[in-house]
Amino acid sequence: MLYLIGLGLSDETDITVKGLETVKKCSRVYLEAYTSILLVDKPVLEKYYGREVIIADREMVESASDEILRDAQNVDVAFLVVGDPFGATTHTDLVLRARELSIPISSIPNASIMSAIGATGLQLYNFGQTVSMVFFTESWKPASFYDRIRENRSIGLHTLVLLDIKVKEQSLENMARGRKIYEPPRYMTVGQCAEQMLEIEGLKKEVGEGGVYNEESLAVGAARVGGKSERFVSGTLKQLCEADEVLGGPLHSMVLLGRRTHELESDYVREFAVDKELWDRIWKRDYEGKQ
Amino acid sequence: MLYLIGLGLSDETDITVKGLETVKKCSRVYLEAYTSILLVDKPVLEKYYGREVIIADREMVESASDEILRDAQNVDVAFLVVGDPFGATTHTDLVLRARELSIPISSIPNASIMSAIGATGLQLYNFGQTVSMVFFTESWKPASFYDRIRENRSIGLHTLVLLDIKVKEQSLENMARGRKIYEPPRYMTVGQCAEQMLEIEGLKKEVGEGGVYNEESLAVGAARVGGKSERFVSGTLKQLCEADEVLGGPLHSMVLLGRRTHELESDYVREFAVDKELWDRIWKRDYEGKQ
Repeated sequence: MLYLIGLGLSDETDITVKGLETVKKCSRVYLEAYTSILLVDKPVLEKYYGREVIIADREMVESASDEILRDAQNVDVAFLVVGDPFGATTHTDLVLRARELSIPISSIPNASIMSAIGATGLQLYNFGQTVSMVFFTESWKPASFYDRIRENRSIGLHTLVLLDIKVKEQSLENMARGRKIYEPPRYMTVGQCAEQMLEIEGLKKEVGEGGVYNEESLAVGAARVGGKSERFVSGTLKQLCEADEVLGGPLHSMVLLGRRTHELESDYVREFAVDKELWDRIWKRDYEGKQ
Repeated sequence: MLYLIGLGLSDETDITVKGLETVKKCSRVYLEAYTSILLVDKPVLEKYYGREVIIADREMVESASDEILRDAQNVDVAFLVVGDPFGATTHTDLVLRARELSIPISSIPNASIMSAIGATGLQLYNFGQTVSMVFFTESWKPASFYDRIRENRSIGLHTLVLLDIKVKEQSLENMARGRKIYEPPRYMTVGQCAEQMLEIEGLKKEVGEGGVYNEESLAVGAARVGGKSERFVSGTLKQLCEADEVLGGPLHSMVLLGRRTHELESDYVREFAVDKELWDRIWKRDYEGKQ
């Protein structure tokens, strides 16, 4: 059997009881560790599970999935995923391959950032499609997120923005020379995300396609959702550019509010505001009672 | 401290290890049991937690929340929620009241149907806003879901439809006579949902506002998501009207596909099709390659 097991969002105790009982009886245990991370390290997990944990990087999952699935017709294999196995990153390709090999599959759900973000107090019913934000470079500033946000905002909905993480990445030079030397991991912050969003808004405006949001659009920055040190900061996009210190370490995510914001949502979220007075003023002007 | 603890979706072992450790040390334990249910009964939970469990019905949560919060400045109180505490049903009002009373709050996330529905193989990134479907009566057929689905479909997105449950409901007669006699619980099925959706489409068409979906629109019915007896059935809305027997007991939910469906999603979902040939034909005609 192939077990896809969600680990939740924070530490080793966020696994479900069912998930823990299952991982303890598996012959091989893989941890998908390139699209998200827990706030604890591999040795902690190994001790907790009483099992060796094999880190599955992108290369392994995408190119060597048959190694992960080896003999899973006869033995139990666990594939651990931070969050939920079918959450922000889906592993449908691995499951499709397992189906081809007639391997039975079972999945054990857990909290995903895509639902846990409800802890901001914003109602999940009012969210549109989720978007991803990648690290920009000088020459590469992908802006497909902008059109998605435009769609969400056109019907008044919030947008969850998931932020890039880079683990086990090679520099261009090392890649060109075939050197398996990896850069230190990088995790995008809310501040970087807000800056990139405003940068794209500026570029779109220049070509007459702007106006989806602006410096005064309200948003919520979230750090370590579901963990003991969970932290939220709300404010304008401009304010959130400077909020990284308050938010602290990774992982970060962000929600851009839609205009169809319920009063109860604002009541809840303003508690986290950098400046409650400014929050109230903008909320009354641009959001309150809008449909 | 007030602990809001998600129980996940299926049985007593879907609680997280952190959640279980927490509930075991709480002085009072409430279970919110009117917006969703686990597939196990209260005595099973009480034995598992080693704690008495107090069922919190809608009346208690909405009108007597101060009883739930009593003395929570000094003792630990657990408020258990099926799924995630901030998922499909938010308990922000309870938290806002706790804030007023200076009660510290901690929440322990878990799987919510709003992310676990990813187990259908449909990508959560492609979902728009979630809608709710209530039981229609002869004279009351609320159709606000229809405009929400229209919005989602106008930008190509899937829609998760959450289905009504009725627990501890009085008949009008018993209510009028002040008799606290309750009807047996009712859980809406995928079949009932598909029928109500098509009924509204028919009514809207009559007044020239129809065309959001039709009998041949593709959808996925889901039953007991995250449980051992989890079951999916995919097909047209018309086919899903007849799918209840295959799906089995509660809880059910449904996803109506958006046209922006990725090939990998269709590959995954067609495995559950009532009729794979029909699925392929409609998918090619109405969905494949659409943006």
